[in-house]
Amino acid sequence: MFSKCRTTLLSVCWILPIALSSTVFASALNEQQQQQLMQLKSVSLEASTAFDIVESLTTEVGARMVGTPGQKKSEAWAQAKMHELGFDKVWTEEVTSVKWHRGEVSAQITAPYPQKLVALALGGSVGTNGNTLQAHVAHFDTLDDLQAAEDNSLNGKIVFVSYKMQRHIDGDGYGKAVGARVVGAVVAAQKGASAFVMRSVGTDTNRHAHTGVMRYQEGVEKIPAVAISNPDADLLVRQIKRGQSVTMALNLSAGNNIEEVKALNVIGEITGSEAPQEVVVMGAHLDSWDVGTGAIDDGVGVGITLAAVKHILDLPQRPKRSIRVILFAAEEVGLHGAKGYVDARDSKLADHVIGAEWDFGNGKIYKLSPGVGPSALNTIRELAEYLSPMGVALTTDNIAKGQSDMSALGNLGMPAINFNPDGNDYFDYHHTENDTLDKVDQHALKHNTAVYTMFAYFAAQSAVNFRQ
Amino acid sequence: MFSKCRTTLLSVCWILPIALSSTVFASALNEQQQQQLMQLKSVSLEASTAFDIVESLTTEVGARMVGTPGQKKSEAWAQAKMHELGFDKVWTEEVTSVKWHRGEVSAQITAPYPQKLVALALGGSVGTNGNTLQAHVAHFDTLDDLQAAEDNSLNGKIVFVSYKMQRHIDGDGYGKAVGARVVGAVVAAQKGASAFVMRSVGTDTNRHAHTGVMRYQEGVEKIPAVAISNPDADLLVRQIKRGQSVTMALNLSAGNNIEEVKALNVIGEITGSEAPQEVVVMGAHLDSWDVGTGAIDDGVGVGITLAAVKHILDLPQRPKRSIRVILFAAEEVGLHGAKGYVDARDSKLADHVIGAEWDFGNGKIYKLSPGVGPSALNTIRELAEYLSPMGVALTTDNIAKGQSDMSALGNLGMPAINFNPDGNDYFDYHHTENDTLDKVDQHALKHNTAVYTMFAYFAAQSAVNFRQ
Repeated sequence: MFSKCRTTLLSVCWILPIALSSTVFASALNEQQQQQLMQLKSVSLEASTAFDIVESLTTEVGARMVGTPGQKKSEAWAQAKMHELGFDKVWTEEVTSVKWHRGEVSAQITAPYPQKLVALALGGSVGTNGNTLQAHVAHFDTLDDLQAAEDNSLNGKIVFVSYKMQRHIDGDGYGKAVGARVVGAVVAAQKGASAFVMRSVGTDTNRHAHTGVMRYQEGVEKIPAVAISNPDADLLVRQIKRGQSVTMALNLSAGNNIEEVKALNVIGEITGSEAPQEVVVMGAHLDSWDVGTGAIDDGVGVGITLAAVKHILDLPQRPKRSIRVILFAAEEVGLHGAKGYVDARDSKLADHVIGAEWDFGNGKIYKLSPGVGPSALNTIRELAEYLSPMGVALTTDNIAKGQSDMSALGNLGMPAINFNPDGNDYFDYHHTENDTLDKVDQHALKHNTAVYTMFAYFAAQSAVNFRQ
Repeated sequence: MFSKCRTTLLSVCWILPIALSSTVFASALNEQQQQQLMQLKSVSLEASTAFDIVESLTTEVGARMVGTPGQKKSEAWAQAKMHELGFDKVWTEEVTSVKWHRGEVSAQITAPYPQKLVALALGGSVGTNGNTLQAHVAHFDTLDDLQAAEDNSLNGKIVFVSYKMQRHIDGDGYGKAVGARVVGAVVAAQKGASAFVMRSVGTDTNRHAHTGVMRYQEGVEKIPAVAISNPDADLLVRQIKRGQSVTMALNLSAGNNIEEVKALNVIGEITGSEAPQEVVVMGAHLDSWDVGTGAIDDGVGVGITLAAVKHILDLPQRPKRSIRVILFAAEEVGLHGAKGYVDARDSKLADHVIGAEWDFGNGKIYKLSPGVGPSALNTIRELAEYLSPMGVALTTDNIAKGQSDMSALGNLGMPAINFNPDGNDYFDYHHTENDTLDKVDQHALKHNTAVYTMFAYFAAQSAVNFRQ
């Protein structure tokens, strides 16, 4: 029955479960809107809109780290793309960020068995001032082990933390691994180390190091911080396990000064037909690291959010509420775009009715977690019923506060939905040279675009106050 | 019946099909030898001998291109390893090869959309003498298309050939793609081009370029030759397809002079108990390219051939014939070790009864092709019957002449067997930075070691003249 239904009268069949649900609570969408929602789903699952946008961004701009020529190009590209797609309003908002110069890294084991290592500076690392730093390696399995080392026990040494990130559908391993990247250099310096080296925070076995932001601490010496690729970390561990003293040489031409720069949030909106002052928000970040072309992180987010609006723009009329896409500046270096966005606004973001970010790669969405008021939960259940046949399950275990940039808005009380994709392979490419267009799974991209299109349309057509 | 047999009386059960076969032709092995063959199989499928050898080579030596410090280290390592494993004789034979300096490559698209490209110089390429070469790109889908271009039609241009190698179990796609690597720079120069750029000969989508040897031709200008990674080739094609003129900049610090150097074939042998002057030969190459650690190409060949002999050495007595492992020098730059080996010997290699090389990665062997005389084919059928339960099928479609280095011996009339592994993923790693120990499938390595151990034992115990 279902399969026949699916192939003949899709939209009518789809209305059925919702009609049944309406015996429990009022549906947010009328029948015509439900049909339109199904049309949007159908279009999104077929169209290459999102992929075409990612293709354009990665081909015509590529890497776009804050403070590089790619940043300015991406800002111009994003505004032009929004105009091209037919957004009703396009504007930019300037925020303050930082510029860091990566330079080159030369890293090698010099004893007992000299071999070159593939390495990248962590984002924000100082360099070695034209000198090559050579020192004995002090090896720790984890950041905790490093933290337990006695003061001055590492004087002059190069600290190496070999903790290996685990693969998981929800990216759970990242949280356990990324601490070393962020604070490892500070902890090592506090114990007297001359440099900090870590196994990349990544799940791949490619000879690509994973960069990502690190922090120094006032009053603690700034020492160079690099990540080496997983195969290189394996090699270093194997040499260490042979029991002889291991020495390394490091030379980083990274800039020692962080310079303040301006960057733009690029914002586009379609104007609601009945309540234009109420805004449904979708976010992604426009910046990327400098080593790849930012296809997965976060080109697909740019593609999905812009494509969702484009599909809604193609309807004969605008939904009731406005829909805004914010392409945030400078996410990678510390959510600077999102912070600038909220700093420029009313502290409660009262006109932001609900928001969702896309910044977690390109696996298929399989779960949604709402962060809404108790009354609005039934409305979310209705949305979940539309998404359920696509394999997207509702979970209310956690209260969503918004992902990535959107967390800055969620933390101020804006209702949010987190859509969770299969993140198993995200950290194979994350923050590496390997983040390129070919990694985008076009089938998953269409699925995810359909989910975001349906979410945006649903939220913009409903009259529900998601705060309540 | 079979499963019960397998778990209780393995060796006896195994003898059965061979005993049946003996109604057709005399078995090469007696019952005790058949039992020993099954013991060797069993040991080889369990032991980590081959992996331990590859681990040692990649950890303690790593990259070992001819003319680099790694070459000398690998030669010392190989002799020490043969002694450690208990070979009866270990010696070296000096051959003449060439030293080339890779240097660094800087490659980028400069218009219409400037982006950096991941590139490697092809082996033997000249550099740009400290200058940056900037020119328009002339794009060809294939080497054939380039060859069809008119003389002087490419004056000053950078030629780009974008042909994409296809994945295939027998590596079939390599032959179709590698021609451009070897002669592309000559053809481009003949038409007036200033440099030659090609899509890497590889099946992966990693941001790793694949190096490999290229040739210049007397009387044709030597122009720089580089490979770019598959994702970078995709990017370049996408920019070209937008229809605007595309320009590139190239700077290679590769050395312009090829210097003659000496390298060593490292040879180990166990002495036959009855016919020591008759030698069963196994080969692999000791050198590697400089960018990876030569785990797959050809560390596994070193591991498999040495481990096969080690397992036979552990038997209570030596087989009838001698078994020789030749770790060839300088395969990558032109089979120089193999050529030196045959040049130093009787032109018929009459004492070399049969040979097999391992130089095709680490997929599981699924096929063997003999190159033996018609009478000896029945003996090969017997070997194939032992290997058949392991999923290794006999094919007589082609007459094997020996693979890689061993072809130099096979071409002189030495009988050979080609063992064919599943080569589907070999060209994901071939000649890249990514050729590291973690890529070695230990299960397949044991399978392949078992096949080589059984082959070596079988050939060394038989009295068959494989030439007849």
